[in-house]
Amino acid sequence: MRQVAIIGIGQTVIEEAWDRSLREMAGEACLDALHDASRETVDGLFVGNMMSGIINSQNNLGALIADWVGLRGVEAAKVEAACGSGGSALRSGLMAVASGELDSALVVGVEKMTDRPPHEVTAALATAADADYEVDMGVSFVGLNAMIMRRYMYEYGWKHADFAPFAINSHANALHNPYARLHQKITAEDFEKSAMIATPINLLDASPIGDGAAAVYLVPAESLVAGTPRLLIAASSAATDTIAVHNRPEPLFLTAAYKSAQDAYRQAGLKPEDIDVFELHDAFTIMCALSLEACGFAERGKGVQLALDGEIGPKGRVPICTRGGLKARGHPVGATGVYQVVELVQQLRGECSPTQVDGATIGMAQNIGGSGATIVTHIVKKE
Amino acid sequence: MRQVAIIGIGQTVIEEAWDRSLREMAGEACLDALHDASRETVDGLFVGNMMSGIINSQNNLGALIADWVGLRGVEAAKVEAACGSGGSALRSGLMAVASGELDSALVVGVEKMTDRPPHEVTAALATAADADYEVDMGVSFVGLNAMIMRRYMYEYGWKHADFAPFAINSHANALHNPYARLHQKITAEDFEKSAMIATPINLLDASPIGDGAAAVYLVPAESLVAGTPRLLIAASSAATDTIAVHNRPEPLFLTAAYKSAQDAYRQAGLKPEDIDVFELHDAFTIMCALSLEACGFAERGKGVQLALDGEIGPKGRVPICTRGGLKARGHPVGATGVYQVVELVQQLRGECSPTQVDGATIGMAQNIGGSGATIVTHIVKKE
Repeated sequence: MRQVAIIGIGQTVIEEAWDRSLREMAGEACLDALHDASRETVDGLFVGNMMSGIINSQNNLGALIADWVGLRGVEAAKVEAACGSGGSALRSGLMAVASGELDSALVVGVEKMTDRPPHEVTAALATAADADYEVDMGVSFVGLNAMIMRRYMYEYGWKHADFAPFAINSHANALHNPYARLHQKITAEDFEKSAMIATPINLLDASPIGDGAAAVYLVPAESLVAGTPRLLIAASSAATDTIAVHNRPEPLFLTAAYKSAQDAYRQAGLKPEDIDVFELHDAFTIMCALSLEACGFAERGKGVQLALDGEIGPKGRVPICTRGGLKARGHPVGATGVYQVVELVQQLRGECSPTQVDGATIGMAQNIGGSGATIVTHIVKKE
Repeated sequence: MRQVAIIGIGQTVIEEAWDRSLREMAGEACLDALHDASRETVDGLFVGNMMSGIINSQNNLGALIADWVGLRGVEAAKVEAACGSGGSALRSGLMAVASGELDSALVVGVEKMTDRPPHEVTAALATAADADYEVDMGVSFVGLNAMIMRRYMYEYGWKHADFAPFAINSHANALHNPYARLHQKITAEDFEKSAMIATPINLLDASPIGDGAAAVYLVPAESLVAGTPRLLIAASSAATDTIAVHNRPEPLFLTAAYKSAQDAYRQAGLKPEDIDVFELHDAFTIMCALSLEACGFAERGKGVQLALDGEIGPKGRVPICTRGGLKARGHPVGATGVYQVVELVQQLRGECSPTQVDGATIGMAQNIGGSGATIVTHIVKKE
């Protein structure tokens, strides 16, 4: 199996882009990544997207985007794993290059969410959960996360205000990311006063929807000139859990995140303490705590403490969401997993002042589809 | 890169299964394939599906189906390339095993189409075409194929009746396939008298929608006991074309089919005349002609002649649709590409009497997404 390197990245601003189509946004990210990689073509295109069939009346995105960006003829397909689609598409591109089937792959995550009214988007997002046994009972995707958060607070004794540092950190970091959806500093008081969505999740616990696209360009590491710095995918691992939260013996532990992270650590020969920067999937503040715990950065029930101790900022012990995370960079769902890896590359290249993690050489990204149902973890390493 | 073998197959009857859910149908095919492979688990699940988000309000099929069939925890994702989703998912599973990332993969194609009224299914199928520049103009997916067929008839001088042998062959073969959607012998007179859908495509030119699932189990060939017969994936190749038909310089030639088939022949070291059985994508009779021509079995404009000459039956020179094809076995869109490969395996195992192709050792399957936009070709070889 060949080792795979990232040689190009691209991303769009995340916004309500009512004047641009899905293909235009995906195209912008693809062309940026091609330009950044100094390449004009590629052997295959892998698209991460969740909801284009529902929201944009458009499937077959592989062929659509390939043609639009001047790659007519190349292999192309879409990969879907709910909000984990971006990470899953990256994994497909990685396997295509690692296997030797292709000598280069372009992975683009794209989601165009704001073209339809909010209640339709809420319904579309609920397709990440179990349609027959969760959604048909009337629970929305936020509702599921709210039940998890409430149980976590009850079980471990945390107050809602204790989750504020997660949102504050993401918003503070996004201020310095020109691609972020929200450029708005928030305080603990703002956090507690914001509008309730599904108790105990309020507006500032939740990531915003948005339109956006991000892309990475992959090649075999062996094709790069030796002696120059290389950004290698040191680990890639995916795992699943039950899609319905009520079927889990331990609903407060992200079993798939644990499996996927453990496997990634094993592949890379690393431990949690070796990770310099961790782009986690903060769709809701509760997910920050659960992800930190499942990946070995905090004991069970103690993820919140890590944030309260000030350890999650760019200069902390476990820097997370350094470009704003899902909370403030934004969460165009199928694109998010690719944004995370693009941001790791920016960190490892040292392009993130003033939220640069000093001397970062190893970054981890974890992308979650559903309420912990599909989880993909990647470790990127600068050599 | 490791060579990959198929050691198990499974499939459901294709029908209007109003009493069974998507996960139940996918589960049946998966469990059959596991049983056929004499395996109890697998390293990864790859799901081919096009429309579950729209029709079944369900995404995240990877985690959903993995859990349902007792594979909770394994890697899983869905691959979508419109009606080519099954072939694309197979290619993902293949690359996962070929790369060494996984030591086994289960690929399941599934589509549950009949739970919604026909006009909604027609709209969902149209998401395979260009939403902005074809569908918004009012053209349906049948409409696009009708324009191609009309132009083909004009350009090469064929009458509508000349396409009858394609439909007659598929229906005759499906009579002997217990999994087929339609068990109904048809005549040339039936063909000409059937109801018009979109001139010149009538009901018997078009494949029926249906609910169904099919699965294959993949392992590295090196893991099999030497000396016993093996079914190897000798070639796998995907290519794309413009998604909108009006953007093609030659709308009567399936460029992506040509590219994908040529690449497959090169990989396997074969020529068209070496193929014993060809499961092609006869969504409409016109697609039979175009596919035969693009893959080198007939000259341009002469695909129809091959059928008129009686060469496409199980005992003919180029046996196609030996289990009924999309036309009569049925076309549960995201499952079709996997059904094709399951049927090749049945042919190579010699299980298809009385439509068995005598002495078949090499089979080719070609799966098409959109009106020729995404095309995946596989060659399976018995050794």
